[in-house]
Amino acid sequence: MIENKKIGGDRMGLNEYIVGLSNLEKISRAPGFFKFTEHTVAAHSFRVASIAQVLGDIEELNGVEINWKLLYEKSLNHDYTERFIGDIKTPVKYANKQLRGMLHTVEERMTIEFIDQEIPEEFQMIYRRRLFEAKDNSVEGQLLAIADKVDLLYESFEEIVNSNPEPVYQEMFLEASTTIQSFKERPSVKYFFAHIFQELLNKDFFGKDDFLNRVDEVLAN
Amino acid sequence: MIENKKIGGDRMGLNEYIVGLSNLEKISRAPGFFKFTEHTVAAHSFRVASIAQVLGDIEELNGVEINWKLLYEKSLNHDYTERFIGDIKTPVKYANKQLRGMLHTVEERMTIEFIDQEIPEEFQMIYRRRLFEAKDNSVEGQLLAIADKVDLLYESFEEIVNSNPEPVYQEMFLEASTTIQSFKERPSVKYFFAHIFQELLNKDFFGKDDFLNRVDEVLAN
Amino acid sequence: MIENKKIGGDRMGLNEYIVGLSNLEKISRAPGFFKFTEHTVAAHSFRVASIAQVLGDIEELNGVEINWKLLYEKSLNHDYTERFIGDIKTPVKYANKQLRGMLHTVEERMTIEFIDQEIPEEFQMIYRRRLFEAKDNSVEGQLLAIADKVDLLYESFEEIVNSNPEPVYQEMFLEASTTIQSFKERPSVKYFFAHIFQELLNKDFFGKDDFLNRVDEVLAN
Amino acid sequence: MIENKKIGGDRMGLNEYIVGLSNLEKISRAPGFFKFTEHTVAAHSFRVASIAQVLGDIEELNGVEINWKLLYEKSLNHDYTERFIGDIKTPVKYANKQLRGMLHTVEERMTIEFIDQEIPEEFQMIYRRRLFEAKDNSVEGQLLAIADKVDLLYESFEEIVNSNPEPVYQEMFLEASTTIQSFKERPSVKYFFAHIFQELLNKDFFGKDDFLNRVDEVLAN
Amino acid sequence: MIENKKIGGDRMGLNEYIVGLSNLEKISRAPGFFKFTEHTVAAHSFRVASIAQVLGDIEELNGVEINWKLLYEKSLNHDYTERFIGDIKTPVKYANKQLRGMLHTVEERMTIEFIDQEIPEEFQMIYRRRLFEAKDNSVEGQLLAIADKVDLLYESFEEIVNSNPEPVYQEMFLEASTTIQSFKERPSVKYFFAHIFQELLNKDFFGKDDFLNRVDEVLAN
Amino acid sequence: MIENKKIGGDRMGLNEYIVGLSNLEKISRAPGFFKFTEHTVAAHSFRVASIAQVLGDIEELNGVEINWKLLYEKSLNHDYTERFIGDIKTPVKYANKQLRGMLHTVEERMTIEFIDQEIPEEFQMIYRRRLFEAKDNSVEGQLLAIADKVDLLYESFEEIVNSNPEPVYQEMFLEASTTIQSFKERPSVKYFFAHIFQELLNKDFFGKDDFLNRVDEVLAN
Repeated sequence: MIENKKIGGDRMGLNEYIVGLSNLEKISRAPGFFKFTEHTVAAHSFRVASIAQVLGDIEELNGVEINWKLLYEKSLNHDYTERFIGDIKTPVKYANKQLRGMLHTVEERMTIEFIDQEIPEEFQMIYRRRLFEAKDNSVEGQLLAIADKVDLLYESFEEIVNSNPEPVYQEMFLEASTTIQSFKERPSVKYFFAHIFQELLNKDFFGKDDFLNRVDEVLAN
Repeated sequence: MIENKKIGGDRMGLNEYIVGLSNLEKISRAPGFFKFTEHTVAAHSFRVASIAQVLGDIEELNGVEINWKLLYEKSLNHDYTERFIGDIKTPVKYANKQLRGMLHTVEERMTIEFIDQEIPEEFQMIYRRRLFEAKDNSVEGQLLAIADKVDLLYESFEEIVNSNPEPVYQEMFLEASTTIQSFKERPSVKYFFAHIFQELLNKDFFGKDDFLNRVDEVLAN
Repeated sequence: MIENKKIGGDRMGLNEYIVGLSNLEKISRAPGFFKFTEHTVAAHSFRVASIAQVLGDIEELNGVEINWKLLYEKSLNHDYTERFIGDIKTPVKYANKQLRGMLHTVEERMTIEFIDQEIPEEFQMIYRRRLFEAKDNSVEGQLLAIADKVDLLYESFEEIVNSNPEPVYQEMFLEASTTIQSFKERPSVKYFFAHIFQELLNKDFFGKDDFLNRVDEVLAN
Repeated sequence: MIENKKIGGDRMGLNEYIVGLSNLEKISRAPGFFKFTEHTVAAHSFRVASIAQVLGDIEELNGVEINWKLLYEKSLNHDYTERFIGDIKTPVKYANKQLRGMLHTVEERMTIEFIDQEIPEEFQMIYRRRLFEAKDNSVEGQLLAIADKVDLLYESFEEIVNSNPEPVYQEMFLEASTTIQSFKERPSVKYFFAHIFQELLNKDFFGKDDFLNRVDEVLAN
Repeated sequence: MIENKKIGGDRMGLNEYIVGLSNLEKISRAPGFFKFTEHTVAAHSFRVASIAQVLGDIEELNGVEINWKLLYEKSLNHDYTERFIGDIKTPVKYANKQLRGMLHTVEERMTIEFIDQEIPEEFQMIYRRRLFEAKDNSVEGQLLAIADKVDLLYESFEEIVNSNPEPVYQEMFLEASTTIQSFKERPSVKYFFAHIFQELLNKDFFGKDDFLNRVDEVLAN
Repeated sequence: MIENKKIGGDRMGLNEYIVGLSNLEKISRAPGFFKFTEHTVAAHSFRVASIAQVLGDIEELNGVEINWKLLYEKSLNHDYTERFIGDIKTPVKYANKQLRGMLHTVEERMTIEFIDQEIPEEFQMIYRRRLFEAKDNSVEGQLLAIADKVDLLYESFEEIVNSNPEPVYQEMFLEASTTIQSFKERPSVKYFFAHIFQELLNKDFFGKDDFLNRVDEVLAN
């Protein structure tokens, strides 16, 4: 029998991790920023993991060995810690590097606190790996970094196509493109620009010619 | 240079798969059903993949070998095909088994059509594996089935706690619990009922005593 | 006295029909499709019935005899059955005719099930007439078909005017226009193109000239 | 050819009536009042027309002759004029009868203005009939009055069942019940209380016993 | 001890005023009018009070004496009475001056009723001052009138920049600009056009050149 | 003439401050926390300023001298800086005092940066006063602190009344009550508990008796 009074008598863990997944369904990505479609951190995480999967396929087809467990794990969990202070690092116009660093530190310390308080000891090591910065220099870390930018590129493109090319979305699109291009030695990035990017841009919208010129110019440098 | 006229001259693929991820951000899970919080298919997929990850950890700790690539792949993609006809199989009160089967067939045929039209040939095999029914009898298939029900259990519990225990959410909660219990030989299910479930139920809400009695009764059978 | 224990002892009917009207308030028309304004099936039904009324007036003024009961009944109820599987037939890009037929069959069988389970016997015949395909060749069936397209034309025009002329809305607008034009012998369609359509297009928006050229071209054929 | 410069050169009419149908999709019924589900005037109009149809069926089965054209017309159009000043008459706690009368007058004068400016002369008489107070003493006027209250009763019941029986929704439910009961000689009202009402109340919710006692008491008087 | 039965035994007042502040959080400004961003009366009031503060600073810097209490009070409370009949005076296309006057009268009488019923006697005089027409000829009344239009100007500009320059928002922008210009002897208005307005218009958007020409032309007259 | 190329040539200021007011319309207060009604920072600021006004009236009636300019200024601007990193300080369960301090520091430094970059020099001093911590020990600072908690108390009460007394809202209500009570020597707090609080609690809801007992108990200590 489930005894009401006994329940919750001691910390049992993992429930709070799952509850956090629901929180991420309610936390906006870059709040107040995207105007045409709002995104939640949960949906963004799903998209990034799925895009990383696409990139992993391409790499593998090109002979690169992929640690799939790591790739999925990194991409699925890379923004979980936004449940603590939300997604505030993206749009902070008035923050310099030091302030962003402080925000990062706060997030990290709350993550440590969360793991200590809510995760049973036998799983704590796993969550320490999962919930800390995943964009390292491993192939999988690079693919996450690229996937994160591909998602941003699609998000900003949706804004450009639907709500007029406000400079801010164009800049975001170009910044995402440039960051992806900085990994241009990766087979998945070559494939991306040769195929996916072309197909994406194959859509009519106002100001398309000017926009393509800017894209062209930025990527040429 | 990106030449406008050349772009889109032939199908290049994978862009449409990524566009589909955005669609899933806008498709409701069980439309008109959840009253307190609405869920998108994208967010649900993220949650199920994350819960499957929790279950995988527990299994592994208990000596079960997990094919992590398969577990993540199955859980992340298990509802992608809802982009085609939405999530209409859950709440259909007036549909018998045959009608549900027909809907399933329609979805499958559209998936085939999608793969043929949109996925480059070299990746088609992979997507055939990913986009077809993932809940097989493998350990990973079972963990997906359990994770899907754990998510439903949390979703219905949120309704119960917040908007009065309407019978429909109680029944959903109990049905989810029973399905999870049907896998009771799995270590992750044992752990779930011994720890996570108890912690979840440790929350005050109206009608709690009656509700716990029903849960108790149903799970005892 | 309302005795709690007696209530619901046997099926009484018609309540479930009314409850379904509320469901239609929560079911989106072509989910994920309209970007500027979302529409519910309930609101769409109201609009189509009101537009059919406009068309009926014009026909009558031109000497056509209208069975008003039939016209209102057809237009008001024409999408009620979408409460069963939602509005999934419109946006299915990857569905061929056969798959659409299967979806249609599922909807029809659920409608039969619904009438059997929920409608008192003395009213079942009426609901069989009301809830099955209303777009027959009668004058009223034709006016419903036209009104349904006029509503779609207004919906797509609102998208064109407000969120840039994305090709998909232009095509929808043109498809609706062409279908309406296929009834060009009807007095209400003549009036529509001579007056209402002109007044609608009398609005400034970006890309108007190109758009009018396309409209002109399509309708000329 | 559609000549841009000619379009809109003179008032053509009926387009503005159709545009108004879209406005009603965006105007809330009793804004800020319903907490669990918000309703638009368009959806409410659809529901009232459909409920009036149910009542008409019952009356007819009981030998009452129904002018269906009138019944549909009255119920479909009864709140169209809320496009002018919104639905502000329902929730105004601080308004006495005279102030409500003044609001009513404003709405009427704007309706006259609208018909003069926007409806072609040959249809003006029809719209004068349609857009003015429809709840007269004819059978159809009575059925509209009843249907309007049945809809309110379902709306308030949804609030009661889902968001706790706040007194205001109970009072609204009771007021609607009482008004419907005042037409108790009508066959459709007898049927409503004997069958539909019973089936509606056959649902579990918190505070149900107390609520049924109040309903019982109020209807007994 | 808080005795349940005693509470509410007599009118105590001021609670209803505070409850009204929440209502204003749910009442839309010009319902159905702004398409890109909806505004609540509460948020609008906050913005107008903050803009009035900006104007007050500029005036003071230019040697004008400001009664700050009055300026804040006027701007903060200037739309409180919209809790009674909503914001229906702005978009009423078919209302002439007399009808607007009638609506105004209704609002005023409900305000009187509200003060009598809900505000304790010792505060009634204060609320009579606060809740009645604040846009008098005092400096503070003028600054409120200007701030109200500056907010409208920003609201319409956001629509123009984001959802295409539909004529209606351009006209609103121009009307707001002209009204502000009518106070051109005020130092804050001079500063506004010399500095703030220029900075606002320094943003890229489609149709900017045409738009600036119209602005230029209108303000030149 | 407004010359496109000249506009924005140099920083002119104050436009960005006004744009920030719009941002606050889109930033949620305690995101993901309130379940029944979400609140924006803009609406919250309006409410706090209006409640502070109520408290100021009561104080003045009791012979306390109020600096109204300061009271309005403090309350209107007290959360403006949340435009920089959102409202993240309220719901952070895993943050200790030091982490909250770090977040506060980040916000402060961004505020300094904002004033330097966006506010013309002649107004910078004023904004330094306005945008920094306003809850000092002055009468006006105290009234702001009280008003902020009164608003929280109303917000949590709305949750309690409408979505079941979940412990978290009860605790929030009690915490707000206790903080208000800590200023019990202030005439406005005496009046609040003697009149407004009583009137607020005079409303039926589930679990009211238990809730009043808890309130009673907490306030007695």
